[in-house]
Amino acid sequence: MRDAFHDELDAIGLSLIKMAQLVQGAMDDATKALLGPDLELAEKVIAADDAIDFMQHDLDARTIDLMARQQPVASDLRTLVTSLRMSADLERMGDMAHHVAKQARIRYPNRSVPEELVKTIEEMGRVAHEIIGKLASVMETRDLDRAVEIADDDDEMDKLHRDLIAVILDDNWQHGAEVAIDMTLLGRYYERCCDHAVSISRRVYYLVTGEYRSEK
Amino acid sequence: MRDAFHDELDAIGLSLIKMAQLVQGAMDDATKALLGPDLELAEKVIAADDAIDFMQHDLDARTIDLMARQQPVASDLRTLVTSLRMSADLERMGDMAHHVAKQARIRYPNRSVPEELVKTIEEMGRVAHEIIGKLASVMETRDLDRAVEIADDDDEMDKLHRDLIAVILDDNWQHGAEVAIDMTLLGRYYERCCDHAVSISRRVYYLVTGEYRSEK
Repeated sequence: MRDAFHDELDAIGLSLIKMAQLVQGAMDDATKALLGPDLELAEKVIAADDAIDFMQHDLDARTIDLMARQQPVASDLRTLVTSLRMSADLERMGDMAHHVAKQARIRYPNRSVPEELVKTIEEMGRVAHEIIGKLASVMETRDLDRAVEIADDDDEMDKLHRDLIAVILDDNWQHGAEVAIDMTLLGRYYERCCDHAVSISRRVYYLVTGEYRSEK
Repeated sequence: MRDAFHDELDAIGLSLIKMAQLVQGAMDDATKALLGPDLELAEKVIAADDAIDFMQHDLDARTIDLMARQQPVASDLRTLVTSLRMSADLERMGDMAHHVAKQARIRYPNRSVPEELVKTIEEMGRVAHEIIGKLASVMETRDLDRAVEIADDDDEMDKLHRDLIAVILDDNWQHGAEVAIDMTLLGRYYERCCDHAVSISRRVYYLVTGEYRSEK
């Protein structure tokens, strides 16, 4: 009986990794759709968000069902409770990709991002890709060194976010308030997405060590 | 033994209501600090966010401990899992008050909000106050009619958010990109805070009925 339980626990872990991979793909596509601009790809990301939401509901139902049937204690219970939180973070990360794709769609056929910010957004997309990829691998391997690295990688995202705001605030900004608003929110979507990744990496750390790593 | 269990369950419920009340106070003070501007009050909100965060950690530890010791099933398990989610939503709502207060502080001694947006922000503060107050009462009474009302009240917040964006985009906007960015983020803080309140009200609905109410 305990073996069947641990099989189910493993299956939940695999679904969480799969969810992280879906979010990574969604964010990649959202950035491409934004910079293309590519309406078809934007629509694909928007539709795919329902699949991520469904996956969270399904995963949570399985987790709660397992809690009820198996009455886990100690580290197994900790794993299941942490799974619920990770799935919530991953679902929010998916929402951020969804928001980016909606911004691609609303300005189409124009490109939402002005020329002088294309490089910054590309970089934000690249850093998000790396962070989410590393997160998926940390969720699989539980490598604590790499878990800790994710917070450092996120510093790069924060720097890009500051760069983006600096461009909007520069006296040479020619694109008015509407584009300033779009770019402010866009920057926040990438930044928040990676904040959630950091939060999940801390949960992995907690699962392995039983302790929360203090924030910098 | 079961009675002691339900006493603890009730105590967790009361802590969640207390947390909602703290968040309501924090958001009220943050709005006042912003519009004053009032630096001392802003600092108070920023410091109080640690208390809200601590409350969440404590509440979650008690919830998980209760799960481990009492092995609840069915509706009791559902209540405990839902408590974990509610505390996460409330903590995020507290973060939004914190963000508003930080915006009051960063522009002090100037007022961050330009004259033509004071009315809108006041209204956003008022609607947030009502929504969070109603939420605290719904968490206590489990009144489903009022739970459903919260989603409608949130439509008012969304309308105010659209009004705010319209002012920033108006040709008469004289305050440049920096204030446009501040106001864009500020609008998002109020809006997100109330989105979390809607999300908690749906969880109450789920706890009482066992079903999720479909989103509009």
